[in-house]
Amino acid sequence: MKVNGVSQRSIWADPGQGRVWIIDQTRLPHAYATRVLASVDDAAEAIRVMRVRGAPLIGATAAFGVALAMSADAGDTHLDACRAALAATRPTAVNLRWALERMHARLAPLPAQERAAAAWDEAALIAEQDVAINTALGEHGAALIAALHRRLGRAVRVMTHCNAGWLATVDRGTALAPVYRAQEEGVPAHVWVSETRPRNQGLLTAWELREQGVAHTVIADNAAGHLLQRGQVDLVIVGADRVTRRGDVCNKIGTYLKALAADAAGVPFYAAVPSPTIDWTLEDGIRDIPIEERGGDEVRVVAGLDAGGAPAATRLLDAGAEVANPAFDVTPARLVTGLITERGVCAANAAALAALFA
Amino acid sequence: MKVNGVSQRSIWADPGQGRVWIIDQTRLPHAYATRVLASVDDAAEAIRVMRVRGAPLIGATAAFGVALAMSADAGDTHLDACRAALAATRPTAVNLRWALERMHARLAPLPAQERAAAAWDEAALIAEQDVAINTALGEHGAALIAALHRRLGRAVRVMTHCNAGWLATVDRGTALAPVYRAQEEGVPAHVWVSETRPRNQGLLTAWELREQGVAHTVIADNAAGHLLQRGQVDLVIVGADRVTRRGDVCNKIGTYLKALAADAAGVPFYAAVPSPTIDWTLEDGIRDIPIEERGGDEVRVVAGLDAGGAPAATRLLDAGAEVANPAFDVTPARLVTGLITERGVCAANAAALAALFA
Repeated sequence: MKVNGVSQRSIWADPGQGRVWIIDQTRLPHAYATRVLASVDDAAEAIRVMRVRGAPLIGATAAFGVALAMSADAGDTHLDACRAALAATRPTAVNLRWALERMHARLAPLPAQERAAAAWDEAALIAEQDVAINTALGEHGAALIAALHRRLGRAVRVMTHCNAGWLATVDRGTALAPVYRAQEEGVPAHVWVSETRPRNQGLLTAWELREQGVAHTVIADNAAGHLLQRGQVDLVIVGADRVTRRGDVCNKIGTYLKALAADAAGVPFYAAVPSPTIDWTLEDGIRDIPIEERGGDEVRVVAGLDAGGAPAATRLLDAGAEVANPAFDVTPARLVTGLITERGVCAANAAALAALFA
Repeated sequence: MKVNGVSQRSIWADPGQGRVWIIDQTRLPHAYATRVLASVDDAAEAIRVMRVRGAPLIGATAAFGVALAMSADAGDTHLDACRAALAATRPTAVNLRWALERMHARLAPLPAQERAAAAWDEAALIAEQDVAINTALGEHGAALIAALHRRLGRAVRVMTHCNAGWLATVDRGTALAPVYRAQEEGVPAHVWVSETRPRNQGLLTAWELREQGVAHTVIADNAAGHLLQRGQVDLVIVGADRVTRRGDVCNKIGTYLKALAADAAGVPFYAAVPSPTIDWTLEDGIRDIPIEERGGDEVRVVAGLDAGGAPAATRLLDAGAEVANPAFDVTPARLVTGLITERGVCAANAAALAALFA
């Protein structure tokens, strides 16, 4: 998608140089900066501290991390070690494990001297497939928006949560892909953007919507229920970090509250789910998906700009204040109207998902 | 309650000097400062910019505002003008209108020369009655906590929202009064404190709980649904800005999301409601209670401390960013387990409320 009118992806690589570039998302939206990843340790650090975030982009970054590792040392020991190091960065998004297993399956059978080139190729393929998946998913989701637009005769008011835009993927986004596709088709939408404390990734959503010229309004997370109750939202589309085979949706903390409020208001609630986000090994998301507990300073300190416009943090609570910071929650399938995938839209249940991906 | 171990109220007056003192809550918890109100304009400004906030304290401040006005000019024109000026400060909390009507009913029949003294007396009486109401309400609510403690055999985990502690009242608080009373009775509680964006009044709750020595943990508003879903909350107690005669509860934005999540989890959800917060003239809270839309900079800018520990704000969004900022929402009575009042606990319906206040 566009940054200052120029097409841009969230991650790109030069296998010849053995280098990967990312946008450092810890600095967005207050500053725009790219960053070089020159080693698997750089890649692991970027995932852990959330320079890259969003389940699909975490998967792609991990794949490129394996390529960086293979350029340094393509031996069996290092192949296993880099997988373990990358897998340990974050626990919830299943795309991380999916990408690592795919890389391992491709590389392990090869002789060491062939692994680096194959790793760069496979990582690039994962990135390209992410874009293709999100493009297809966006078309299916845009059909939902277009149908509402035909019925309502006005801009469709979409509520999202966190950032599941192009920044959370290699390109196009998941939850926002339908909005971008609708825009390309001339179907107007307006997006309600929740701040998404504690890390305020909603500000990334506002930033990328502004760059694409999509109308949007930022709200405190607390306002979402009120807007849904008062008929100000036509549909909700969120991303996902992991979806079980029966359609339980694990996503950024606060998603579950929006799902409850959408259900109470009779507003359709969709999760945009590329297939690598589906964990076919799990049934019950509440029981089985590990929920990452992140550092308390995410709650205690807020990043922004000072009065002079320079990046600055403000402290809300002193370092000794007791805080809890679960990073994800699970929305049970019963609250999910449908899953928007690259193969089409299906109900959030085991039979419908299995039929789509038979 | 206590500040640095010393008993303190949120508002106090010296009729002889014609002065009222408040704690400037716009500076809490990052700085503690008192402020003099010397005129009705000072009182109106303090309510409007939220130096004082919380429905009961808004009511008491308005009453003292009338007293300040009468000390300056007790004529009929000024009596009407001060009522109008104070009534226009904030639209949602019914205690404001209740206090102004009570003051007017007391003062209008009197000759002008008797009004100032009567106004100071009546305002002081409103303040004392607030403390008495909250103390009684706290006893009824503490019985709920004590019953849970007997059943569970451990500290009772109470979730609240915003600040409905002593800072929101003259003293004792509404939602926190039961917790403070339980503490006095030796019944242990732990409080989940939601940040309460956009103004972060949850930080006031954390501050006053710490000053009273009550165990608590601060969370992002988004985390409330997850904690309720995972069995981490034994009961929810919130305050109210206005309750209709059938028990619809208007309170700080975000309350409704907690009510939905409590309902889904089977966790009891109570509103602590002093009788001046009941609007007997309204039935349907969603249809009839005006919801204040506050300035967008409350969303765009966050107050805290800089790296040196000095009060500083950080900007999240530039001044041109589109934001919406509804300050309250309405929880329908069907989601409310009960109302904790000074006369006891009753179901959230018209018959039960009418019976209690017959």
